[in-house]
Amino acid sequence: MSTPLANPWAGRFSQQMTDSLVAFNTSLPLEARLFEADIDGTAAHVDMQHAVGLLQDHEHAALAAALGEIRAGWQAGEITLRPALEDIHMNLETLLVEKVGELGKKTHTARSRNDQQATAQRIYFMRSTRELVDAIDTLQRNLLEHAEQHAGLVMPSYTHLQRAEFTYYTHWLATYVVMLERDRSRFVDALERADQCPLGACASTGTSLPIDRRLSASLLGFREPTLHSIDSVSDRDYLVEFGAHAANLMIHLSRLSEELISFTSQEFGFIALADGYCTGSSIMPQKKNPDVPELVRGKSASVIGNAMSLMALLKALPLGYNKDLQEDKTAWFAALDNCMSSLAILTELVRTMAPVPEKMRAATLGGHIIATEYANYLVRKGLPFREAHRVVGELVKTADTLGVDVAELPHERFAQASALFGEDVARITVEDMVARKNSLGSCGDQALDELLARLRSMLAAHQSGR
Amino acid sequence: MSTPLANPWAGRFSQQMTDSLVAFNTSLPLEARLFEADIDGTAAHVDMQHAVGLLQDHEHAALAAALGEIRAGWQAGEITLRPALEDIHMNLETLLVEKVGELGKKTHTARSRNDQQATAQRIYFMRSTRELVDAIDTLQRNLLEHAEQHAGLVMPSYTHLQRAEFTYYTHWLATYVVMLERDRSRFVDALERADQCPLGACASTGTSLPIDRRLSASLLGFREPTLHSIDSVSDRDYLVEFGAHAANLMIHLSRLSEELISFTSQEFGFIALADGYCTGSSIMPQKKNPDVPELVRGKSASVIGNAMSLMALLKALPLGYNKDLQEDKTAWFAALDNCMSSLAILTELVRTMAPVPEKMRAATLGGHIIATEYANYLVRKGLPFREAHRVVGELVKTADTLGVDVAELPHERFAQASALFGEDVARITVEDMVARKNSLGSCGDQALDELLARLRSMLAAHQSGR
Amino acid sequence: MSTPLANPWAGRFSQQMTDSLVAFNTSLPLEARLFEADIDGTAAHVDMQHAVGLLQDHEHAALAAALGEIRAGWQAGEITLRPALEDIHMNLETLLVEKVGELGKKTHTARSRNDQQATAQRIYFMRSTRELVDAIDTLQRNLLEHAEQHAGLVMPSYTHLQRAEFTYYTHWLATYVVMLERDRSRFVDALERADQCPLGACASTGTSLPIDRRLSASLLGFREPTLHSIDSVSDRDYLVEFGAHAANLMIHLSRLSEELISFTSQEFGFIALADGYCTGSSIMPQKKNPDVPELVRGKSASVIGNAMSLMALLKALPLGYNKDLQEDKTAWFAALDNCMSSLAILTELVRTMAPVPEKMRAATLGGHIIATEYANYLVRKGLPFREAHRVVGELVKTADTLGVDVAELPHERFAQASALFGEDVARITVEDMVARKNSLGSCGDQALDELLARLRSMLAAHQSGR
Amino acid sequence: MSTPLANPWAGRFSQQMTDSLVAFNTSLPLEARLFEADIDGTAAHVDMQHAVGLLQDHEHAALAAALGEIRAGWQAGEITLRPALEDIHMNLETLLVEKVGELGKKTHTARSRNDQQATAQRIYFMRSTRELVDAIDTLQRNLLEHAEQHAGLVMPSYTHLQRAEFTYYTHWLATYVVMLERDRSRFVDALERADQCPLGACASTGTSLPIDRRLSASLLGFREPTLHSIDSVSDRDYLVEFGAHAANLMIHLSRLSEELISFTSQEFGFIALADGYCTGSSIMPQKKNPDVPELVRGKSASVIGNAMSLMALLKALPLGYNKDLQEDKTAWFAALDNCMSSLAILTELVRTMAPVPEKMRAATLGGHIIATEYANYLVRKGLPFREAHRVVGELVKTADTLGVDVAELPHERFAQASALFGEDVARITVEDMVARKNSLGSCGDQALDELLARLRSMLAAHQSGR
Repeated sequence: MSTPLANPWAGRFSQQMTDSLVAFNTSLPLEARLFEADIDGTAAHVDMQHAVGLLQDHEHAALAAALGEIRAGWQAGEITLRPALEDIHMNLETLLVEKVGELGKKTHTARSRNDQQATAQRIYFMRSTRELVDAIDTLQRNLLEHAEQHAGLVMPSYTHLQRAEFTYYTHWLATYVVMLERDRSRFVDALERADQCPLGACASTGTSLPIDRRLSASLLGFREPTLHSIDSVSDRDYLVEFGAHAANLMIHLSRLSEELISFTSQEFGFIALADGYCTGSSIMPQKKNPDVPELVRGKSASVIGNAMSLMALLKALPLGYNKDLQEDKTAWFAALDNCMSSLAILTELVRTMAPVPEKMRAATLGGHIIATEYANYLVRKGLPFREAHRVVGELVKTADTLGVDVAELPHERFAQASALFGEDVARITVEDMVARKNSLGSCGDQALDELLARLRSMLAAHQSGR
Repeated sequence: MSTPLANPWAGRFSQQMTDSLVAFNTSLPLEARLFEADIDGTAAHVDMQHAVGLLQDHEHAALAAALGEIRAGWQAGEITLRPALEDIHMNLETLLVEKVGELGKKTHTARSRNDQQATAQRIYFMRSTRELVDAIDTLQRNLLEHAEQHAGLVMPSYTHLQRAEFTYYTHWLATYVVMLERDRSRFVDALERADQCPLGACASTGTSLPIDRRLSASLLGFREPTLHSIDSVSDRDYLVEFGAHAANLMIHLSRLSEELISFTSQEFGFIALADGYCTGSSIMPQKKNPDVPELVRGKSASVIGNAMSLMALLKALPLGYNKDLQEDKTAWFAALDNCMSSLAILTELVRTMAPVPEKMRAATLGGHIIATEYANYLVRKGLPFREAHRVVGELVKTADTLGVDVAELPHERFAQASALFGEDVARITVEDMVARKNSLGSCGDQALDELLARLRSMLAAHQSGR
Repeated sequence: MSTPLANPWAGRFSQQMTDSLVAFNTSLPLEARLFEADIDGTAAHVDMQHAVGLLQDHEHAALAAALGEIRAGWQAGEITLRPALEDIHMNLETLLVEKVGELGKKTHTARSRNDQQATAQRIYFMRSTRELVDAIDTLQRNLLEHAEQHAGLVMPSYTHLQRAEFTYYTHWLATYVVMLERDRSRFVDALERADQCPLGACASTGTSLPIDRRLSASLLGFREPTLHSIDSVSDRDYLVEFGAHAANLMIHLSRLSEELISFTSQEFGFIALADGYCTGSSIMPQKKNPDVPELVRGKSASVIGNAMSLMALLKALPLGYNKDLQEDKTAWFAALDNCMSSLAILTELVRTMAPVPEKMRAATLGGHIIATEYANYLVRKGLPFREAHRVVGELVKTADTLGVDVAELPHERFAQASALFGEDVARITVEDMVARKNSLGSCGDQALDELLARLRSMLAAHQSGR
Repeated sequence: MSTPLANPWAGRFSQQMTDSLVAFNTSLPLEARLFEADIDGTAAHVDMQHAVGLLQDHEHAALAAALGEIRAGWQAGEITLRPALEDIHMNLETLLVEKVGELGKKTHTARSRNDQQATAQRIYFMRSTRELVDAIDTLQRNLLEHAEQHAGLVMPSYTHLQRAEFTYYTHWLATYVVMLERDRSRFVDALERADQCPLGACASTGTSLPIDRRLSASLLGFREPTLHSIDSVSDRDYLVEFGAHAANLMIHLSRLSEELISFTSQEFGFIALADGYCTGSSIMPQKKNPDVPELVRGKSASVIGNAMSLMALLKALPLGYNKDLQEDKTAWFAALDNCMSSLAILTELVRTMAPVPEKMRAATLGGHIIATEYANYLVRKGLPFREAHRVVGELVKTADTLGVDVAELPHERFAQASALFGEDVARITVEDMVARKNSLGSCGDQALDELLARLRSMLAAHQSGR
């Protein structure tokens, strides 16, 4: 028997797998990154087999040692997976057999490739998602640090991409720290939910052998075994959930990117990215392109598509293992990689970018943003708000016609518009307006201090929670 | 001024909204279901205004009474929203003004439509999502009850839609109870995360008025106010999350539907749906169509699309309120309604359907499912598993050629295949195989009892958690 | 028999449809807009029945007259569809029976609801998609007209949202005329492909009655009957295709919207939208919000989701009619309506918006866009392009440091950078650069004339092709 | 200057690209497959440069020869792309410079990487999509050939996955030939629409150099140049369209796969796949799994997600080149590869699968499919159809109660049900029913002959059209 393991079901078949099927069917290129998790899952399985008496002491010792060697060899880059062996599981078994002979095949007792695969995926899921949670935390820290370093810079706050109110650069950027906290918490929830070990579900209805699934789960650091054997091999909804959370995260990063792209345009000019994170043009000597946020924005589209793939994949699939499930890794890994690389590069980008205070300050003086405060002024003098709004609206129209900001209108225009306008209206400043907005979560000096303290303690809690 | 409220920004404009803009812009048809939430949000805002001194006692009393009347009128179906008033907020303010005069406009102090809308949506989100959580629980209970009522029915368990192993009908159906528990838990997490009140964020950077956002939040039953004012009006990721969880739920329901459609086909015939939940054909007198699971499967596609709409909507949107956000309700409500109606009708379908034991039993006797047990038999006699697998594989091939199940082969065929086969091989039964599979979460009698107890206590915890 | 038609398959059933199934199952609200198409399809069917001898002269006359009355009644708004009758087909048959007695049921000879529904959908598809094609043409005309009216206005052309080169406002806007031409051509192709009549496919395998499907198709204005009876009732890929083309169209409109939103921001300020197509803020008197392009951008997300719903709906559906298909209308109609309303309002928006030449002109003088031309200048003096690029890049860096545009540097800076710079470098103007770019499809005066002529003749061809 | 080409914009920058940006930014791994197209595009550009006088004879000769050598080296696998050189374009220029010195850089005259990239993509698009069209044709031929080889086999036709009517295996399979014809025609339309060459659009507004875009287009085999320079570098809607058509194609393949999976289950058993295209189980000796259709079904989900990625990518992107566009290749290539591999393996699967006539025949005798014909029998005897339907419905209910097919009921049951039933009712056969359904496109002997002839001539037209 030349390739006994590659085709472990030969008995019933009168024909070998065609080459085209082998090529179409292989999951090896994508699965390679699960190989170490498969070694770990197998090591736990072997320990459990030993504990319940399915392996004798010396068998267990030999297998454990062999698995250790394979892990070391893999980490050292000395092992090449063989495509002819179809998947990582048959590769691992073959390596074991080469080290310990027929005993290697005993690892398959009370296990099938269905639960073995499910276990390796779940192990990798827990590890890689935890890394992702850390990467979110790192971006949050850098955003907050950068925001705090650049205190006191007033800029417009936009709605409908129209200048609406004033805020601080610090306050604006802190929004993303809050948004990312929800992303982080979604992944933490997903980890909590996925923290169950499918090992022992076998093909789909378990086994009559006296295995100890709680032990296997515990050895692998899972909270508990999965509840139901059929579910264990059918379920990929932790990946659908992951895909959705990844899309949500990338949507947040795409919103940050969109704002960075706008804010680094010549028209806004609020932020200067470090040269090292931009590219130029081979034709136009003046160009400095914000490639990083553009690519992140593009990658958010890819990840949304990945989420779609995972949803469409599972839709209307009967229970039990179906080969369709092999496609889960394409979208999962793509989403994971795009999240990780986008978080990392944005972290560097944020750390190295610089606000341009004079451009932000100049923008606050255009667009009549101060108009709301004039209306408030009239309200404080006793005019009903709606009427005050109308009066100031007319002033804005006048200013527009004259091509100036409403604050630049001569005092007589104010006086004509309403007798309530005193000379003191000229003393209303942008800075006052910002500093006084102290409702909870707002940009006022006091509210912002409170918010930043809250965010710092939130991030500190991450640390201790690790 | 005939319609002062419909156009509350008229001052700055030299032209009224065109009719085509009014028609294109209106959110009223979709928003009507948020109207009661908007009344509630406004009532809390008025209470808070009073508490911090923005309203005097008599003003507060008048507004609270008027809001109570409007709520009663709405619930009684006596109020028709006026399209000319653009949205629910202007409708509400107009109704207030009609009742209490100019005082009605004071509700707009320290509030903008941006946070007002965000608040109404959040209130409705909490309520409707809690109802959805209950609807999931109801389907779970009915699934479990039905599964327990039909104990002891053996059926094939499938992988690749090929008969793979045996299980009980009870065990198979219990899978969905477990799957739905994850759906439920996802929505519970989402509720926890969304349990923050945006009221007081105003247009996007709060206010300098001395409002008490903690009080508003508490009056509306929220855990706390949202952390950040800009985030409060920009954030719709609770809807992106909802859309994804809804898709995941519907995917589960589509998997159940797919299996019900297969299992009610003449070829499987495992389940008979109640006539009252099926339709026939106007042409073919024999037809009895499983419309319900088909429609649910179809609706799962709609909800997946809704999830995508919400993701695409938010992608690359700058912070602050953007009018795009008005489209969030289309996908959100569609997803919500499809989930609720699908859960309700499947609950009835499951309650009224009947397993067909003889068809299930017959299926266990075909497809050579028992082959694995023959292999196990040989293993117990000392043959290595791989060799046993090969021997039985050959027997299966022989049986296929003869057109019979492997269990129907005469004993001499067994004896020829391996001398280890004794006469006792004929005594291996399907029922034994199922009953003995007692690894945790499997179908064996003991394991199944444990699983059902676990599921019952899980459902009991829902109850107490309400 | 009180409701004989509502349940035309009662014979085989021992239980009536439950109320919950009736409610869940009904397609009436969405289908109502297909009712007139169903009348038309039925009228053609009746004519065909008569032609092949399945109806006698007087039967045909009575049915044709009754159908005419029903059509007139429907158009006059005098007919209300009855939900108890499940769908439009049973409503139509009931109306017929009420007018002509049992004869009305003969319309069901050689037809089933499967092909009847498919036919009504296809009729409506052809009509509504042709209207969509016309709506695209109308937007194209208005874009082109507006672009031509505002000739000679120079503005920056952007890549990476950075000022890259110069172009004319006319040239920029013409891009969308070209993009929309591809959308139009996609829908025209889809119409061509869908121009087949499914009538006569019956439940899915046709009939042994001597019908004439070519006649039915021709009476309804289709090119030909569908080729295959099973395909006729299973196929919805014309809707998947429609959804994708609709998404592509909306993506184009979202790109135009994104640019309009940017270009109407205070920072760009290139375009002023008519007041009648904007809204203000109830709080901030200065706001003028570009609601229309924002909503269109939001609706593009909805339509992308619709496209996904349709794809997910059809995925892995077995052939023949499956009830899932009833969900096709939700996404189809939503996509159609969003396209039609977006095209119409953008047509008005474009017609009424005004470019702001001084803002565009000012923008061309910042951002060092002219740098490329300085490099070209050096190339003409004999410097290799890469070296010229480097020299000018240094000048740009200097200008950035000084906070001026490169064109504003004193001549000595140029002279220091390269001895090749003569005094004539100061005479290089933006206008020259634009006017001289005469490669095919570019903005140069000659190239632009040629392009506009081409677009005009393209639109003229639409007209004649109608 | 050590790496002059890797950073051709260095002049303006005070900092080199960071390593992390280089890694994040690189498009090389995906773009490698465009390298040959880039060589071809460059060769055409060089020929055009020569024709219009931008290159002298000896320069042109040297560059053309060098490009030929590079093409040969690439085809021979002797060239390795250098990641440090960022993209394929800088790799190509570097190779040229290594061969012909500074002259190599002249290829960049009147071209930018924006139109160079657009051109390479368009060339590759035309070639690979034409191959896809051929692969569809090949599957169609094999489906038709297989269908024709297995004439005369009666099987049930399903609606709602319930047995509805009868048809021939040949007729059923021919449905897919018709469906694929629409896919093919969609791609052909897309090719027609995309058949325009962007070369010469330069960065986005063309050039003042006297280039001949018609010549470039013609040299590369395009119908014409693109119309508009900005559109040329902004447009990726041919990829959105490709993604949608690819999804539609894969949806069709997923429907075929779903039916093959059902039809190869033990419950249906209509089709036996060749062993060489199935896999078994390492645990269950009896398993023979339809991996190929399962994987194709899974891949259809991936491709639907790819379509989504492309749509989300383009949504709301401003015109001009944006770096987001670099992500287009991820989804495009994934969709293309999945389509090509799925078509190829399904072609083999169809060629080698075998219908199981006795299982199909047996299925026609269950499920009361013949009931419709009994109703028709009564109609021919003068009973109104609705009444006949009711009578036969009752017979079906009786048969169900007795657990037999309606055809197996004793004659007295028929006689009791209606006096119109004569003894001849027993002579109604399945075969008669199928053979007589001769409406256009149906399964009747005559109609099917006509259909097959039509399909054969349709495929013949493909051939001649190549």
